[in-house]
Amino acid sequence: MGQNIAPFQAIAISRRAHELKAAGQRILHMEFGQPSTGAPKGAIAAAHHVLDSEAMGYWESLPLKERICRHYREGFGVELSPRRMVITCGASPALVLALSTAFNPGDRIAMARPGYVAYRNTVRALNLEPVEIACGPEVRFQLSAAALDALEPAPQGVIIASPANPTGTIIPKEELAAIAEVCQRRGIRIISDEIYHGLSYGPKIHSMLEFAPDAYVVNSFSKYFSMAGWRLGWLVSPEEGVARTNAYIGNLFLTAPSLAQHAGLIAMDSRDELEGHLAVYRKNRALLLEALPRLGLDNIAPPDGAFYIYADVSRFTDNSLSFCLKLLEETGVATAPGVDFDPVDGGRFMRFSFALSTPEIEEALARLEPWFAAQPARQTA
Amino acid sequence: MGQNIAPFQAIAISRRAHELKAAGQRILHMEFGQPSTGAPKGAIAAAHHVLDSEAMGYWESLPLKERICRHYREGFGVELSPRRMVITCGASPALVLALSTAFNPGDRIAMARPGYVAYRNTVRALNLEPVEIACGPEVRFQLSAAALDALEPAPQGVIIASPANPTGTIIPKEELAAIAEVCQRRGIRIISDEIYHGLSYGPKIHSMLEFAPDAYVVNSFSKYFSMAGWRLGWLVSPEEGVARTNAYIGNLFLTAPSLAQHAGLIAMDSRDELEGHLAVYRKNRALLLEALPRLGLDNIAPPDGAFYIYADVSRFTDNSLSFCLKLLEETGVATAPGVDFDPVDGGRFMRFSFALSTPEIEEALARLEPWFAAQPARQTA
Repeated sequence: MGQNIAPFQAIAISRRAHELKAAGQRILHMEFGQPSTGAPKGAIAAAHHVLDSEAMGYWESLPLKERICRHYREGFGVELSPRRMVITCGASPALVLALSTAFNPGDRIAMARPGYVAYRNTVRALNLEPVEIACGPEVRFQLSAAALDALEPAPQGVIIASPANPTGTIIPKEELAAIAEVCQRRGIRIISDEIYHGLSYGPKIHSMLEFAPDAYVVNSFSKYFSMAGWRLGWLVSPEEGVARTNAYIGNLFLTAPSLAQHAGLIAMDSRDELEGHLAVYRKNRALLLEALPRLGLDNIAPPDGAFYIYADVSRFTDNSLSFCLKLLEETGVATAPGVDFDPVDGGRFMRFSFALSTPEIEEALARLEPWFAAQPARQTA
Repeated sequence: MGQNIAPFQAIAISRRAHELKAAGQRILHMEFGQPSTGAPKGAIAAAHHVLDSEAMGYWESLPLKERICRHYREGFGVELSPRRMVITCGASPALVLALSTAFNPGDRIAMARPGYVAYRNTVRALNLEPVEIACGPEVRFQLSAAALDALEPAPQGVIIASPANPTGTIIPKEELAAIAEVCQRRGIRIISDEIYHGLSYGPKIHSMLEFAPDAYVVNSFSKYFSMAGWRLGWLVSPEEGVARTNAYIGNLFLTAPSLAQHAGLIAMDSRDELEGHLAVYRKNRALLLEALPRLGLDNIAPPDGAFYIYADVSRFTDNSLSFCLKLLEETGVATAPGVDFDPVDGGRFMRFSFALSTPEIEEALARLEPWFAAQPARQTA
């Protein structure tokens, strides 16, 4: 059998949350990074129309590929050919596709720790070797050009995530450019996960394609576009990788859902509605940043973007999984344990997703405050 | 980079067909195995309802898992726990999941040649080694227990496909049992691709789970259920593989499309409508079997099931790809070249999908007859 990989613990927490819900409890879902809003209205209308007018076979939408190219041109000044665009069933298979086409078994892939659980695990499942670089609060939990330059030997690849999961931190333009320079000089292939693009509370977000035209870029309709359950994402392949990427997708995955491709095209022109969601997240974030310190959670990563707060809970526990489970059982608030994102230090962190409605965030805080106040401080040796 | 894999040539043919269509030509699509009918009416109604009532986040449908278990109980007398069921974005990722969880790099995976293009290519992409067993007309293009028993050394795995693509041949019950016995004795892990289940023109179709309870079984809603573009499939994992399979899917793929899961549940209770499609395929098959010999295609595999005819075109060509492209350009009939299914002998075969309406099949035959009549016999050395 291939390598053992850890389960995504937030899935177990979510499953338990759904059991409690089925038993009649009101649950507040802060465990997954998924908007509680649905797809934009125009996207839903398009889906209704397609349902009644098309048989929906295997299909790749050229209009969607062209629309995504326009998105890079208008948003980042990057010109791409639709040939370089691969439409996928979400960002996850896009990452599998990039890793499996670009690397050989045993290749070393650098990534920040903490980071999204599937980077480490998918790299392992594909018989590549994760090289986790510890990124603490002093570097805002993010990879730097200096850290990549210091790795000996140079890894074959690196996964960049900005805004990042679980911390929401954004890598500034200058640092992205410096990372691209190091990678080009050292022959490190970049995979840039840009799934939280569009979700910033301040800093401008840049695409790695502005600095590394030969990067693989992963993105999806699950976050900013509020279409997680539609399973739609994309991979931008480097020009020289197009034939290979297409051969891989045609064999490993075939096409993305037809309905989602039609709806996604319309979602890309639903800015007003989507910016409305962002305004809600901004308000939720402010509420949490104001309230969490009162709960004893005063050591938190600066959430520049995405919709997460990664909080140090070491005052209470060094076993974030059992802490999150206890919180769920006693308050109905589901969260994700830090161990999903950091196998070394994650026992002392937890992640809150704030992609809910503001009343839900207020309700969650009303439950969290007394619960945290009642938690004993951790016994330290 | 990982291993080079061949592109799926039928995709290139389909792309060219769509160009011709965009230029105003009427195309008959016999290149892909996809029903021209849409999802069952009840499934579409369910999708409309869900679109208007749910936000659709990441979700795995327990009702669908339970319904699929009922399908095995009622159809094959096999009792399964919903725990063993993994819902996927179609059969392709289910195959990726089974191969990547069950095998180590370098493991040898046996399969029939001809066979579905992605078996060989996905096995290669995952750094496993395909062991192709030549299966000619004398064995009805199918793997046998004897052929598997004769392989030295024993492979670590085998992919079984019944009904098969591209030939439609079905493995009889006794042979499936014999294959299971050989695999158990020799320690060969079975992956059974049952994607064409439900589509038989005579022989009863059996599930490998009746004979090998620890087989991985791949299936999908794309064929019998007529929902290719919805991207919905499943993997039955062996009991001892459940934890591992769940860890892999949670990292590599996450969930299947929510809408498709809701609709698929209803599709499974839409038997009358789906049996109506089967009646159409049966008629189409009879029309083709009657007409093709007149075209000089008298050496064809017996299509017990699925919706394909795999025809020997060696009288005309030993380059099926250019032959299929010429046919498309000159008649508007898109087909799949044998090279997709058989890298050794496939130059002398082509595959017709008959999952169209009967009038479309009649129109295709009206174009094929004069075209084939005008083709010169191949110059042989």
